[in-house]
Amino acid sequence: MAATPAYDALAARHTRWHRLEHLQSLATWDRMTSMPAKGAPARAAAQAELAATLHGEQNDASIDGLLQRAAGEPLEGDQRLNLQRMQRQRLLATALPAELVARRHQLIGEAMPAWAAARAGNDWRAFERVLAPLVALVREEATCLARVLGVTRYDALLEQHEPGMRQARMAQLFDEVAAWLPGLLARALDRQRDHTVIDPVGPFPLVAQRALCERVMQLLGFDFDAGRLDTSAHPFTGGVPEDVRLTTKFADTGFLPALLATMHETGHARYQQNLPREWLGQPLAGPHSAALHEGQALSFERQLAPLPAFCATLAPLLREAFGAQPAFDPQNLQRLLIRVRPGRIRIEADELTYPAHVMLRVEIEAALVSGEIDVADVPAWWDERMRRLLGIDTRGDFARGPLQDAHWAQGLFGYFPAYLLGAMVAAQCFEALRQDTPDLDERVSAGDVGCVGEWLGQQVWRQGARHDLDAAMQVATGRPLGTAALQRHLARRYLGEG
Amino acid sequence: MAATPAYDALAARHTRWHRLEHLQSLATWDRMTSMPAKGAPARAAAQAELAATLHGEQNDASIDGLLQRAAGEPLEGDQRLNLQRMQRQRLLATALPAELVARRHQLIGEAMPAWAAARAGNDWRAFERVLAPLVALVREEATCLARVLGVTRYDALLEQHEPGMRQARMAQLFDEVAAWLPGLLARALDRQRDHTVIDPVGPFPLVAQRALCERVMQLLGFDFDAGRLDTSAHPFTGGVPEDVRLTTKFADTGFLPALLATMHETGHARYQQNLPREWLGQPLAGPHSAALHEGQALSFERQLAPLPAFCATLAPLLREAFGAQPAFDPQNLQRLLIRVRPGRIRIEADELTYPAHVMLRVEIEAALVSGEIDVADVPAWWDERMRRLLGIDTRGDFARGPLQDAHWAQGLFGYFPAYLLGAMVAAQCFEALRQDTPDLDERVSAGDVGCVGEWLGQQVWRQGARHDLDAAMQVATGRPLGTAALQRHLARRYLGEG
Repeated sequence: MAATPAYDALAARHTRWHRLEHLQSLATWDRMTSMPAKGAPARAAAQAELAATLHGEQNDASIDGLLQRAAGEPLEGDQRLNLQRMQRQRLLATALPAELVARRHQLIGEAMPAWAAARAGNDWRAFERVLAPLVALVREEATCLARVLGVTRYDALLEQHEPGMRQARMAQLFDEVAAWLPGLLARALDRQRDHTVIDPVGPFPLVAQRALCERVMQLLGFDFDAGRLDTSAHPFTGGVPEDVRLTTKFADTGFLPALLATMHETGHARYQQNLPREWLGQPLAGPHSAALHEGQALSFERQLAPLPAFCATLAPLLREAFGAQPAFDPQNLQRLLIRVRPGRIRIEADELTYPAHVMLRVEIEAALVSGEIDVADVPAWWDERMRRLLGIDTRGDFARGPLQDAHWAQGLFGYFPAYLLGAMVAAQCFEALRQDTPDLDERVSAGDVGCVGEWLGQQVWRQGARHDLDAAMQVATGRPLGTAALQRHLARRYLGEG
Repeated sequence: MAATPAYDALAARHTRWHRLEHLQSLATWDRMTSMPAKGAPARAAAQAELAATLHGEQNDASIDGLLQRAAGEPLEGDQRLNLQRMQRQRLLATALPAELVARRHQLIGEAMPAWAAARAGNDWRAFERVLAPLVALVREEATCLARVLGVTRYDALLEQHEPGMRQARMAQLFDEVAAWLPGLLARALDRQRDHTVIDPVGPFPLVAQRALCERVMQLLGFDFDAGRLDTSAHPFTGGVPEDVRLTTKFADTGFLPALLATMHETGHARYQQNLPREWLGQPLAGPHSAALHEGQALSFERQLAPLPAFCATLAPLLREAFGAQPAFDPQNLQRLLIRVRPGRIRIEADELTYPAHVMLRVEIEAALVSGEIDVADVPAWWDERMRRLLGIDTRGDFARGPLQDAHWAQGLFGYFPAYLLGAMVAAQCFEALRQDTPDLDERVSAGDVGCVGEWLGQQVWRQGARHDLDAAMQVATGRPLGTAALQRHLARRYLGEG
């Protein structure tokens, strides 16, 4: 066996960081699910301490020499790929001067409470005062990254979440969707005008909702010996692949939001639970692409959940949880799950209007990063696009407009595309899965939902970080990412075509 | 303001370690309360990684120089005391060679599952095989510590938990108790023969038990904005002073064990919540003495809970939780809480037989550490003392004999004394509290239990690590630790004397 001391030293460091990030991830999960209010300052100090330790070690000067020496060592195939992923992480980690990293922490610390207050008071101007320096910082960061990567500013931000993705390629995909979606939406709305849909009638006791969610997670193949379901203000998936922590949010006014959030997060969670174990702790274990991650969540939430076959499996579980009622007829359930209602709020949007919410945010954040607009211009851009894309007058409603999401207040620019790219991923994966599984509907309606996770596991999850998005889709579905499968899926579901 | 650069550097390191230990403590709490089974190996690896980092930093050679230079700096009073506490920690941390520390981790890792299996199979011989090398290790550790401290081996182990305590002083206290306790026990048993005690009748729904425990924690002054109650296999208190995590263990067969465990842990928890905030992160913040810590727990569980005044306050809460029944009459409640029944199990023992359980363990572990006996001799010593002290024949019953506790399997020698010293602490504190609060019974029976925590907070909790046990008791109660208050307390409660 050939000696690879530099590579081995790097791998040992990555294993160490993975272990320390386990504690960081647990502390974040606990903060969102369990921590009492007065614990916050000590928790913030503890997490900042560990973050600084990790940042220091990941920026240590000795790593460049190790990377160089490792490149000359007799690595085997996967090791070489892992080394490339290490090099990429190193490039991104060292592109930003420490001063910018510190300034980001400070600005976000100020922006988050200011955002919450501004949203509560519908006060865009108040948020502008903290968003303006944050956008200036993000431009600086993007400039640093762009210089190192040799791409534009927005492409540099995209690259952080979606390796290999460029704004031009994304715009092409989004433009295709924009070309056919408005017509499809109009026809779907027209068609649904004749539908009678019966809403479920409460009460929906929280204990029964939780049991239902856990039952559905089991159907989806979630391993409760390697993770758990809890509640938080905003559903999320955290933890580590060996112990995935997902959350949902229950309300006694309805069970569908919690159930769909649980199915969404279960998609994220099963992906994490099934990343390649043999690479755990190394960059090659992934995840690698935000769109692929969102695509797994949307495969469960948007592709699977509203399938008539799944509604047939779900119906008896709902009757068991909440008693028999007309709304739980499988056909009615499906109509509930595909009901199209243009609205202002992204996270409440249906499958047909959701893309518009993403597109307008991406246009605005790209223009902010490039410098084409400033924060004061955001509301006008927002109103214009909401009117044009969804026919909604949002003027003056900042709270349910550009203040509704926390992404920008967190300094998170370049992530929104993943939600629409993820919808394409999910549609394309599900189409391929359906081709490979001719008896899919029979199996799902008989309660054998595991075949969905089996296909995704084999084709997507176990790839880890081997491929960028297009290559990963090529491996999984036989072609790079496109919009055709999404178009066919929506036409079939909403117009009964194909 | 005079410059104290070395002291400041040391203080900054202690603050860092406190922050990292926050994450360690959270990970342990999660492991005991929430972690799914398959998460264990990754969690163990993550905690070991952080432990190694902390151990490395705390053993860093540069610290000795800093300690020396700090000693020559113009420190203010409390800073000098804090420096002494730093020096003590440093002494204990560096006394053990790294090889011993590593061997301890390995042996404990093997001993814990072996202990659980041996207990399940009532197989002392199987446990001997892992206990023997563990005792050999503990002797080596004790020898290293003893050399540095200039004391005997067992005194060195005591010093780790009880600064300043020596075996001779402890034996004197224990001998005093041993002199009057058997007679007191015999008379109490005789007296209780005439008592009619009505046992509570279930069901005791877990939801109602939890609500009851939380209600009692509120009565005891627990701040739910700075901590929480959860469940685990063995009740414990963890977390950090800003966010204390305590646990209890519910069973639907009875509510008293969970309630008393909750009161016990609430004593630990309130102590931690009320350590001096201005010193948080520094050794001076404490805690410092295991007996003082146990004493706070026992003040709530053993001193307060069975008070007729507290039973009067508890009775309506029990009726609210489980419905009215004769057992919830305050006088009957008190009889339930002081019922004396000699038995084999330490953690189920009453106040009058508990000291015997501690004494026999301390005798055995001290003899093991000194080398007077070997592990094969433990059962005979156990049987002899259980027969002599409690009149129970334990021959052949290892599972409910020397295998019942996990302490030795965890390599924890020198901790058991804290349970009996803690009973003395609690009795002496409560006697002083009663003298300072002449209307104690009126207040407690009116539901104003907060006065107990107020007195303990003022007299004990806010001392932090300022004093060793005797000096702390001198400050709190006007005299060093003794057995007289415990004797008076037991005679009053069990014989109606005084």
